[in-house]
Amino acid sequence: MKTLLIKNGTIITMNPGREVLDGNIYIEDGKIVEIPSSRQSADTVIDARGKLVLPGFIQIHVHLNQTLFRGMADDMDVVDWLKLWIWPLEQAHNPDSVYASARLSIAEMVRGGTTTAMTMETMNHTEAAFLAAEDMGFRAVIGNAMMDHWEVGTEMIGESTDTALKKSRALIEQFHGKHNGRLHFAFCPRGTRNASDELWKEVAQISNQENIKVHTHVAENREQSDRLAEEGGRELDYLDQMGVVNSNLVIAHGVWLTDEEHDLLARKSASVAHCPSANFKLASGIARVPEMLAKGVNVALGADGAPCNNNLNAFMEMRLAALIHKPRCGPKSMPAMQVLEMLTINGAKAAGLEDQVGSLETGKHADVTIIGRDVLHASPGSATNPYTQLVYEHQSSDVDTVIIDGEVLLQDGQFTRWDKREILDSAELELRKLISRSKGISL
Amino acid sequence: MKTLLIKNGTIITMNPGREVLDGNIYIEDGKIVEIPSSRQSADTVIDARGKLVLPGFIQIHVHLNQTLFRGMADDMDVVDWLKLWIWPLEQAHNPDSVYASARLSIAEMVRGGTTTAMTMETMNHTEAAFLAAEDMGFRAVIGNAMMDHWEVGTEMIGESTDTALKKSRALIEQFHGKHNGRLHFAFCPRGTRNASDELWKEVAQISNQENIKVHTHVAENREQSDRLAEEGGRELDYLDQMGVVNSNLVIAHGVWLTDEEHDLLARKSASVAHCPSANFKLASGIARVPEMLAKGVNVALGADGAPCNNNLNAFMEMRLAALIHKPRCGPKSMPAMQVLEMLTINGAKAAGLEDQVGSLETGKHADVTIIGRDVLHASPGSATNPYTQLVYEHQSSDVDTVIIDGEVLLQDGQFTRWDKREILDSAELELRKLISRSKGISL
Repeated sequence: MKTLLIKNGTIITMNPGREVLDGNIYIEDGKIVEIPSSRQSADTVIDARGKLVLPGFIQIHVHLNQTLFRGMADDMDVVDWLKLWIWPLEQAHNPDSVYASARLSIAEMVRGGTTTAMTMETMNHTEAAFLAAEDMGFRAVIGNAMMDHWEVGTEMIGESTDTALKKSRALIEQFHGKHNGRLHFAFCPRGTRNASDELWKEVAQISNQENIKVHTHVAENREQSDRLAEEGGRELDYLDQMGVVNSNLVIAHGVWLTDEEHDLLARKSASVAHCPSANFKLASGIARVPEMLAKGVNVALGADGAPCNNNLNAFMEMRLAALIHKPRCGPKSMPAMQVLEMLTINGAKAAGLEDQVGSLETGKHADVTIIGRDVLHASPGSATNPYTQLVYEHQSSDVDTVIIDGEVLLQDGQFTRWDKREILDSAELELRKLISRSKGISL
Repeated sequence: MKTLLIKNGTIITMNPGREVLDGNIYIEDGKIVEIPSSRQSADTVIDARGKLVLPGFIQIHVHLNQTLFRGMADDMDVVDWLKLWIWPLEQAHNPDSVYASARLSIAEMVRGGTTTAMTMETMNHTEAAFLAAEDMGFRAVIGNAMMDHWEVGTEMIGESTDTALKKSRALIEQFHGKHNGRLHFAFCPRGTRNASDELWKEVAQISNQENIKVHTHVAENREQSDRLAEEGGRELDYLDQMGVVNSNLVIAHGVWLTDEEHDLLARKSASVAHCPSANFKLASGIARVPEMLAKGVNVALGADGAPCNNNLNAFMEMRLAALIHKPRCGPKSMPAMQVLEMLTINGAKAAGLEDQVGSLETGKHADVTIIGRDVLHASPGSATNPYTQLVYEHQSSDVDTVIIDGEVLLQDGQFTRWDKREILDSAELELRKLISRSKGISL
């Protein structure tokens, strides 16, 4: 048995009572056994005196394979951005480039306190993203983008319905629920109209039978959303007809959802991934998050892909989620604790992992992020509540320690197992090779 | 003669041609003498290989004395925030607490690459803010808040017109243009209606005669701005009648300015300090910055006070300025270079220092910020233009070296002259003492 003790921290539990405790957390074989704990020793002891101890952050809606394309496409809306850059680049991926991109993404996320991500990859080589998560001990819900149908004007080469389903089934077989339960599969039809009726219905059936998440893009761009509505009805209605609007559904963005659609999501217990940076950068708009939360929709947070952000920074998305709705909904909207909920327990719900992570409670996996408070930009701190500090003041560079399943992956801001230089160099190399393989992209 | 050589960097000059150079900068006695320079040695040599070398960032509109109150007042609009928290706290300041607050502010700003700030302090003890800037070698344009008149419902104890002017005159005498020209004074009537006609007219006269900046709050909160308009005409019209709308004027926020007011600011060459974080946190709104820039208004950036931000982070304001206008104005609005201009050369213009700082050019002061690129969140970097990296990717923790007037204040991310521990402890101590002095504030 392997034991770990986190001592003397200020513990933001995010448990149902939202307790903040001063004390210790005792961990056995990757699970939280006592909180607070009076124990004083263990195989490994981490001193968190003066630090904030939190459930590891959960980002819902990330594209690991796109991190290689960080910073490569500015100044365009989501439709052009996909057509001109993202799809040609994604098509040039091979397993090595997906692996390098996923590794870089996971390293960046762990450095900033994220311990779980729900991600949508490209059509091919998604096993390489799983393998990166497996090799790094990261918790992830990953799926291959399924595209057996495409919108007018979008040119990505698709795949047959059968091929899309076969790839997904192979990934489920190989990875779903594996590696100490850290890896999970989610179906990822890319967008409502990037998959055929047949594919959606098949996905609905397997998802319902086997309780597998469905992760897709809905109502991101107003023009696109309106056009799709004219062509064949509103996106969410379509998904409802296909049978996927239920507690397994996670929709990314939802910027242009109507009040009735908010009601439907609440009634059916579906989740929304709010991606404020990406919604700004691609000029999509501001999702009506306070309205959705007020209706009981489970809203989580995500950075989306690096090219439209350009970071995978949980602090950034948290801070934006707290700030950007206030002019519309008033200064009391989106209080700090509610925003931290989005990044922790709401994220766990969206990922289907609310019994396993998202709060620091007995019996849950020890996914823990520890934040140093001894920084200029969060000082003086003694008169400030820690939720305010976390949401408005701290930065990813303040993350001191990150633990997943009881394994310490970051300590004193340094990776314990990974070589940062090797991760950076491999990303550069694989990007160069990918560009030389790509059609129509040159630098 | 003291010489400094910055070698092998990627130099983002922000000169009129916006040249990006690979090479060296040679500095003599705090002034840039050669750029690019073929020299290979100097008294001090800094190797900037693989790093970005930039003009030091300039923040316009900061309240140094408020940094002590960081995180102390969430969830309210600007009017309540001032009445319930900021004014009672500001009134409890003494010279020691203003000094500690200014020191903490300057340390935070330098850590994040800011080398110049234009600041509005409280009614009293502004000499302590100047002394902190002087002691730390920071470049600043500082003024005492002048308040000889106040709005209905705001209870801060004011001062007579004479007292306000006397304090300002004393600060001009003691600090304006002093300390190698690093310190400057600006008149700071707190808001359009916090000063009497008499005070405004006197300020206008001295400002015009002696070419001294005027820094005030205008059109921040819609309700307040509309109420003021009903009571006595629109804020900017009033300032124009008082004779201060000219190239010496810097208005903070300007969220609710009309098209005609944008035209007036452009015609009179006045400057606007855009403070996106604060405008969100206090639910004020989004200033129409692309519209102002298109008309030729000089728009700079600032963090405002720590309690309404809660950081003094140039990267955060820059990133927000790039992101938040895109949903309204399109994905091509606010391109990265234009946003960096706001934080450098536009800031220099607003501060009246465009001949001295804001770009890396021969003859200007050597105020330089050097950014490390070897970070996960800005990788892979070889295919990304550096403006995009700076605006969307880098963080204050990436700042490697900061130089003001040729003096290296930060090196390898560490202060060369200041004890961070002492700055943090002194801020905590002075906050505790201030709260015990304050009326109506307890924790």
